[in-house]
Amino acid sequence: MLDYPEPIARLVTALNRLPGIGPKTAQRLAFYLLRAPEEEAGALARAIVAARKDIRYCSVCSNLTDIDPCRICQDEERDRSVMCVVEEPRDVLALERTGQYRGLYHVLMGAISPIDGVGPEKLRINELLHRLQQGQVKELVLATNADIEGEATALYLSRLVKPLGVRVTRLAHGIPVGGDLEYADEVTLARALAGRQEIL
Amino acid sequence: MLDYPEPIARLVTALNRLPGIGPKTAQRLAFYLLRAPEEEAGALARAIVAARKDIRYCSVCSNLTDIDPCRICQDEERDRSVMCVVEEPRDVLALERTGQYRGLYHVLMGAISPIDGVGPEKLRINELLHRLQQGQVKELVLATNADIEGEATALYLSRLVKPLGVRVTRLAHGIPVGGDLEYADEVTLARALAGRQEIL
Repeated sequence: MLDYPEPIARLVTALNRLPGIGPKTAQRLAFYLLRAPEEEAGALARAIVAARKDIRYCSVCSNLTDIDPCRICQDEERDRSVMCVVEEPRDVLALERTGQYRGLYHVLMGAISPIDGVGPEKLRINELLHRLQQGQVKELVLATNADIEGEATALYLSRLVKPLGVRVTRLAHGIPVGGDLEYADEVTLARALAGRQEIL
Repeated sequence: MLDYPEPIARLVTALNRLPGIGPKTAQRLAFYLLRAPEEEAGALARAIVAARKDIRYCSVCSNLTDIDPCRICQDEERDRSVMCVVEEPRDVLALERTGQYRGLYHVLMGAISPIDGVGPEKLRINELLHRLQQGQVKELVLATNADIEGEATALYLSRLVKPLGVRVTRLAHGIPVGGDLEYADEVTLARALAGRQEIL
């Protein structure tokens, strides 16, 4: 039985390590990359190297950035009285895409998860408290995920932050827009009911 | 609204070009690669470059290889009286994995597909005829795919090759091993019935 030639085997192995890419997909992608035009395959290799070299974490909010502090932290037009706490840099992007938020961000770099050995000390919580102590922030929007870890982190932070006199809010839970009531799970439905709002 | 920093945007774009990788997956992979250990992200970039540099097509059978002729064409222990025709290099791997085939291969680099503008002249058919004319091959196994293009290609080749006095065979069609009769489509079932074999 013949295996791949060594250079293909190494490429398949490297692709297979990516999250959500199984051995079959890795093989398909490897053969694609071997046949793709040079500007496509080469561009991917160069983009990986360049992104790793040029992207770092913002020293203020921990978002991913190519300049430090990041563009949002530097932007004088952002509302410095509101700060939104998220778990990951990608969450900043998701919120920015709404076009509805004009405050600052703070990226925790994860969520409290005892089962994965992630305690509060592993998150950027000291950095958050340090920023809040400067007194400019009046409202802290907790936008951690709606899962167990995210909820636990939000609860932990709200207890920690409230004594500082900062208003703490949480993103609303409920039926996704366009979602069918029939397909919503009971917990989401219960939260949507509890959070019902008067139509004015 | 803020977009990705330029190096991330380039990485997402490059990943998004891969087949089956949509914008969401590309974003997820990009953030993963930014955070992955260097030996993982760097290894992928290097593997792409190395594979493109070191892998070429075998000048005899058109399989992908790092040496020319490829290991199979060079292997003195392979049965040179049987040759298996496949569409793509990955099909060689699939057949080698069975461990049941000891002959040679010929990769067509595609299948006849008028709708995609692929006529016989775009495939490695002249190279195939040239190899057959050397007279060593007694049986040609047509292992093109079981779709319309693969069947058309097999039919075309069988008409072309039979006058050379070479025995032409085709991979059997039928119910996949472990497959349920109930879920087999009519065409497969009809082929399985037509190809039924006596239990000895």
